[in-house]
Amino acid sequence: MDLERLEKQIEFIVEIDQLKSVLRRTRLIKEDRLENSAEHSWDIAMMAFILHEHANEPVELLRVLKMLLIHDIVEIDAGDTFLYDVKGAEDKREREEAAADRIFGMLPEDQASELRALWEEFEARDTPEAKFAASVDRLTGMLHNHRTQGGTWQQHNVPANFVRKFNAHIQNGSEALSVVARGLIDDAIKKGWLRDE
Amino acid sequence: MDLERLEKQIEFIVEIDQLKSVLRRTRLIKEDRLENSAEHSWDIAMMAFILHEHANEPVELLRVLKMLLIHDIVEIDAGDTFLYDVKGAEDKREREEAAADRIFGMLPEDQASELRALWEEFEARDTPEAKFAASVDRLTGMLHNHRTQGGTWQQHNVPANFVRKFNAHIQNGSEALSVVARGLIDDAIKKGWLRDE
Repeated sequence: MDLERLEKQIEFIVEIDQLKSVLRRTRLIKEDRLENSAEHSWDIAMMAFILHEHANEPVELLRVLKMLLIHDIVEIDAGDTFLYDVKGAEDKREREEAAADRIFGMLPEDQASELRALWEEFEARDTPEAKFAASVDRLTGMLHNHRTQGGTWQQHNVPANFVRKFNAHIQNGSEALSVVARGLIDDAIKKGWLRDE
Repeated sequence: MDLERLEKQIEFIVEIDQLKSVLRRTRLIKEDRLENSAEHSWDIAMMAFILHEHANEPVELLRVLKMLLIHDIVEIDAGDTFLYDVKGAEDKREREEAAADRIFGMLPEDQASELRALWEEFEARDTPEAKFAASVDRLTGMLHNHRTQGGTWQQHNVPANFVRKFNAHIQNGSEALSVVARGLIDDAIKKGWLRDE
């Protein structure tokens, strides 16, 4: 038993507990509070598990799950950047890379490299796995906004075209899920929860 | 595209959002609030990902992750039963089976069966995957109690022998993790966070 290795792994586990304190803009569907990034990561891992048959190309589910479980860990240092916040997006990459260095760097080298590679793959959205992972990550926000009478769309007066644009890559990962997404947008416009202009 | 199938899957995803509102007795390590079962599920999925090399027998990581992601979903109806609550444990099984019927039953039949089988496997703790999944599920509570100066051990005046007994099956899944667990217990006793008698 390599005790030093095990200790590094345990300290990493203790460190990432803080992801439970990073708040997103999204509200829970049946409780009136903001969602945190840890429970969100569970949510989209479940979505990938249940919905992966709808990916455009066959995906290796294990890699999708790993990517989704770790995709937000950098937010412990870098914070959650709101999807529709153009300004916050400017230095997002820089802040997140420093976070990845520090947090994944707590692990033994082989695992630090694996997690870094998974995170880079998720961010690049080039592989079928990363494209599908991005699909569920975007769909969940739309689902939450739709089920909370407009949610952040309503609150920040986001126009439908923004939502369509920022969610276009749902289609890159899954045609079927993009049909669901369009349905949510159309219904939200009809109900006055999203402005269409 | 089978729209009826997809709609069932989406309604299941919406339903299980409520796991974020089921509170455990455990406190977060760096924020003073109770942990919910959704973020807990993410936590132990991450533990399994990082620690699975320490399982006593080789495990199929994908099945471990699936089991851990779904293992608490029944709590949406049945609530979280405190590990050291002997009374609450009496009708736990009955309440959880009814919950499994209803919640997994929202899915298309093939997936309902898969999730039910995964949950039964987790509960039975017979396979290497289920034994290892149980190990991380128990270790996390001990880790949180240790890192919060005794946490629920202190609060409920739990004796060390109870902790040892209820956590004995960490060893069934992972000798290495049981060494970590014993270290946490011994240190907690030394620091006066856990009574030894």
